[in-house]
Amino acid sequence: MSRVPFAEMSCSIARALDVVGERWTLLVVREAFGGTRRFEDFLERLPIARNVLAERLATLVAHGVLERRPYHERPERYEYGLTERGMDLYPVLIALMHWGEEHTPPGLRPSTRIVHGDCGHGVRAAIECLACERLVSPGETRGLPGFALATARVEP
Amino acid sequence: MSRVPFAEMSCSIARALDVVGERWTLLVVREAFGGTRRFEDFLERLPIARNVLAERLATLVAHGVLERRPYHERPERYEYGLTERGMDLYPVLIALMHWGEEHTPPGLRPSTRIVHGDCGHGVRAAIECLACERLVSPGETRGLPGFALATARVEP
Repeated sequence: MSRVPFAEMSCSIARALDVVGERWTLLVVREAFGGTRRFEDFLERLPIARNVLAERLATLVAHGVLERRPYHERPERYEYGLTERGMDLYPVLIALMHWGEEHTPPGLRPSTRIVHGDCGHGVRAAIECLACERLVSPGETRGLPGFALATARVEP
Repeated sequence: MSRVPFAEMSCSIARALDVVGERWTLLVVREAFGGTRRFEDFLERLPIARNVLAERLATLVAHGVLERRPYHERPERYEYGLTERGMDLYPVLIALMHWGEEHTPPGLRPSTRIVHGDCGHGVRAAIECLACERLVSPGETRGLPGFALATARVEP
């Protein structure tokens, strides 16, 4: 029962989690956004086991989130860079970051803060209407019939 | 090595994942947004094992994402509802949903689509400056020094 394939669910949240939902995966992606490219550098920056890192990188490459590029010939060495598909995960990280900032106890050292470069103030993930090109609140959204997710305001 | 406590990391993404990063957890939260309240209803709507569901609900209650409320006295029965902290996960779900829609093969049935109620068009997670109250692109953000995440445009 524990390995129901999320990839086959009629839910795009489940299918996204099939790619990025394993333990460590989004922290590997976070490092990639921070500029980390090489296996040994990922290993240095994350308290992750070597075999787990190798597996997560392979999964991300297989799903086209990262691409593997040679940077040295003898011996052959590769580095990992975000693809466009990987870059599109930025709002997922920002949404998790903002929620973690708001709702979890601070860690031992201050977290990196992502700010708006022009003004230096913080950012958060918000919801944008693709047609109106403006921000909408959760209560202004609604779910069209399907497998699961509706809106925050739907009652049972 | 595999149980490094994400909760203690100096990274708010890691700390968020400590709460919502386990397999199934965000799908349980998705169901809660869809109006599911009772244990047997979660079980009916998710292909999840009973013991895993019980564990995930307990974790979400322990972290204040869901609250457990009595709805029947003899026998004692409880239901689970999103708290404000839980409601704040909406952008995380929207961000994953949009990425899943854009970048994973469609499932067997159409997914629920979340739309802007006023116009009926789709929504996505975007990044908003908390001061300017406008949308900013990933390239307009930057990371202030800390543990990890910088911006999409930082080079190694």
